[in-house]
Amino acid sequence: MNNNAIKNDAITSRDADFAQWYTDVCRKAELMDYSSVKGFIIYRPYGYAIWEQIQKYLDDKFKKTGHENVYMPLVIPESLFNKEKEHVEGFAPETLIATIGGKNQLDDRLIIRPTSEVLFCEHYAKIISSYRDLPKKYNQWCSVVRWEKTTRPFLRGSEFLWQEGHTVHATEEEARHETLKMLDIYDGLGKELLAVPFMTGRKTEKEKFAGAKETYSIEALMHDGKALQSGTSHYFGTGFAEAFGMKFQDKDNVLRYVHQTSWGVSTRLIGSIIMVHGDDNGLVLPPYVAPIQIVIIPVQQQKEGVLAKAREIETALSAKGYRVKLDDSDRTPGWKFAEYEMKGVPLRIEIGPRDLEKNVAVLAKRNDGIKHTIAIEELPSQIEPMMKAMHQEMYEHALAHLNGHITEVKTLDELKEVVDHKGGYAKMMWCGDVECENHIKDLTTATARCMPFNQTPFDETCPVCGKKAHKVVLFAKAY
Amino acid sequence: MNNNAIKNDAITSRDADFAQWYTDVCRKAELMDYSSVKGFIIYRPYGYAIWEQIQKYLDDKFKKTGHENVYMPLVIPESLFNKEKEHVEGFAPETLIATIGGKNQLDDRLIIRPTSEVLFCEHYAKIISSYRDLPKKYNQWCSVVRWEKTTRPFLRGSEFLWQEGHTVHATEEEARHETLKMLDIYDGLGKELLAVPFMTGRKTEKEKFAGAKETYSIEALMHDGKALQSGTSHYFGTGFAEAFGMKFQDKDNVLRYVHQTSWGVSTRLIGSIIMVHGDDNGLVLPPYVAPIQIVIIPVQQQKEGVLAKAREIETALSAKGYRVKLDDSDRTPGWKFAEYEMKGVPLRIEIGPRDLEKNVAVLAKRNDGIKHTIAIEELPSQIEPMMKAMHQEMYEHALAHLNGHITEVKTLDELKEVVDHKGGYAKMMWCGDVECENHIKDLTTATARCMPFNQTPFDETCPVCGKKAHKVVLFAKAY
Repeated sequence: MNNNAIKNDAITSRDADFAQWYTDVCRKAELMDYSSVKGFIIYRPYGYAIWEQIQKYLDDKFKKTGHENVYMPLVIPESLFNKEKEHVEGFAPETLIATIGGKNQLDDRLIIRPTSEVLFCEHYAKIISSYRDLPKKYNQWCSVVRWEKTTRPFLRGSEFLWQEGHTVHATEEEARHETLKMLDIYDGLGKELLAVPFMTGRKTEKEKFAGAKETYSIEALMHDGKALQSGTSHYFGTGFAEAFGMKFQDKDNVLRYVHQTSWGVSTRLIGSIIMVHGDDNGLVLPPYVAPIQIVIIPVQQQKEGVLAKAREIETALSAKGYRVKLDDSDRTPGWKFAEYEMKGVPLRIEIGPRDLEKNVAVLAKRNDGIKHTIAIEELPSQIEPMMKAMHQEMYEHALAHLNGHITEVKTLDELKEVVDHKGGYAKMMWCGDVECENHIKDLTTATARCMPFNQTPFDETCPVCGKKAHKVVLFAKAY
Repeated sequence: MNNNAIKNDAITSRDADFAQWYTDVCRKAELMDYSSVKGFIIYRPYGYAIWEQIQKYLDDKFKKTGHENVYMPLVIPESLFNKEKEHVEGFAPETLIATIGGKNQLDDRLIIRPTSEVLFCEHYAKIISSYRDLPKKYNQWCSVVRWEKTTRPFLRGSEFLWQEGHTVHATEEEARHETLKMLDIYDGLGKELLAVPFMTGRKTEKEKFAGAKETYSIEALMHDGKALQSGTSHYFGTGFAEAFGMKFQDKDNVLRYVHQTSWGVSTRLIGSIIMVHGDDNGLVLPPYVAPIQIVIIPVQQQKEGVLAKAREIETALSAKGYRVKLDDSDRTPGWKFAEYEMKGVPLRIEIGPRDLEKNVAVLAKRNDGIKHTIAIEELPSQIEPMMKAMHQEMYEHALAHLNGHITEVKTLDELKEVVDHKGGYAKMMWCGDVECENHIKDLTTATARCMPFNQTPFDETCPVCGKKAHKVVLFAKAY
């Protein structure tokens, strides 16, 4: 019996129209809904629960590495926002501004935070005076607002959820170490929780964050061959420190500026999970991030003993700490199969009267559809190895896709072929001039995603200008 | 050695100026700081960590009772906000309104959410069509904005953190049950985590939430005899359902309106903890909500073995799951004693060379200052009974204060005496007329805090108008 058609006939296939497939999955897996304001989405329970798993993973890592959570105001006075020049130029065009409070016109208009650098800077300047006060390593979980013209669920929204870490240190070395350490934690999130391999590296001058000295990023490669920037970590140097007067008396009694970092990931990661792992039946969730890890579907549940056994299995698996759902609603098993496939639940346990006779259950894996018949008493011990294997399979599948889509190019034509047709990254030797970067963007819409940490050269000239090339850079079309 | 004076001389005493004492504690215990926008405070790590403990407790209870977390947009179009008349009248005067997005004037101005009823209503109306879709029990953790004229840290702010639960049900009975169940969970939060006894009951028509049919609240009594509304739970009936078209097809095929509730607590609870338990040395935190439960302070830490032993104790207690901090900084022990007293850390372990010789440590309780000398190897097993006792002592102390401040009054003079001088609640028989309620407020500034669940009458006439009284009501001055 395969009743999937009951629910899934309305999903566009990935190859027919990837963008439409994506929107279909977002809606039909009940991850989100639209609100009446463009670009402000509703994070429905199932979508929000994925974010909660990401939060739990990261918050634990942040705390273990000495970070503390805080909460800064939602609003930034326009006068404060204007203090760091590059920063304000980067964000001003996309701000939402409040001008009326309690029925009165505001003198200093309030910007709804697009990011909170300036708030952290103002606070740090107040509370830091001695080397003893350093480092300060704060993080904040919140939503931010950026007034976007074109929006897509999770990928680009006028409001999104994120965490923003802001740290200040006594030395450049310590701040640089922090910048890379946090990038590493993000990379680990992909490896351990999301089953998403990230390309990591440094952003070009053109692509770096407004106000940062250096920006590093994690980039994921989607099924359609486009890249998705999934997180960033910045080293600020002393730029903001000078603008905001963040100084401290060092051990040698000299007054010095602090060295600063910031880093963040957002609900964009949910988009990453969808587009890396999803298939034509809907979402496919890696087991450790899935809000429901195992769904139990009774077959012929009115038959004696079926529901009782299903509940017994539910209790046994919940007791082991798994996130289990027993669907004993009055829908048909076919409807339920399709529903939880659409929702990407990693493991499905089917149990009916015939299984009951043999004291077995069927365990189906969402990622490859493979079914195993397992003795019921062995279920609790079989879940963990099964989940571990699934996670590994999904990671390796995504890694193979990534590795198969990094193509060394030595000419502009080759680059064009890669980004326009094959998809993925065109790996190119680059002279470092922004003009060449701009030329590629004008020609193809592809952008420099990053300069990977491995900078082994494979050619000598920049294919755009023919000058000496000394940097390895990855170009791709991106979301 | 008592070096408390080093740090604490700057705290106003509670009896000299309670309001100043409160502000001093908020600042000096590093719970919060002011930002450059009035009423928008910065939740510093220590204050935010208290909120995280509250979140953890409640989120767990919410999930165990079948609630799901979601995230709704930060902004509400003015046109949507205006849909439920009473609601908009209640909130319109204190809204912050965004009028500019991406440099353009907005056609439909956006209200920064002061509460999210209308957003939940709009969404529920879209996703609910059948009895099968009910109940929906959603909760959201977020910040809300209410443009306040007079603000005080945690007690009344233009922005505060809270959770707002919004549920819809097929029947009135189920919705009413939910309203009271959530009030009960809040009451349990006081009993189990905050060591704060709440007065619970129903709000008068005058004091209920804008748009609600009935409002219930938890009220805490502060050290100075004023009440603090610390959480509310509302039954909405079908008012919003009718305004927003939240209908469902019932089992009998009849189209019916849903019955609705909402309930919330906020960072106000932190104010409650401060003003119920604090003393002239600063904050006093109940052990289960304390971000740091045990601080270890080495004495003469440069002496051989002291720091090593302190670290050993830290490791042993952390391994048992306690939140422990070892302060091995280069400050003096006196400075540290005062610092962690100010921060209200429940237990302090002192260990110096002489203790080391006897293999003991000194364990000091923050709530009553009592010190115990305990064999080091017994420390891990002594913490839990000690914390349990402290929690109980603090709860009972607060309960005695509460019970000692509920005074039955039969005349307006008696009421005036209670609310103006003795402090606490004046328990009065009331006719039920809002005019009498208004009269008391005009005369004393005291308001009806609640009509307690125990409605045993103790008099026959309303002391204001002399008419027949049939309701027990508690009046008090309140924050």
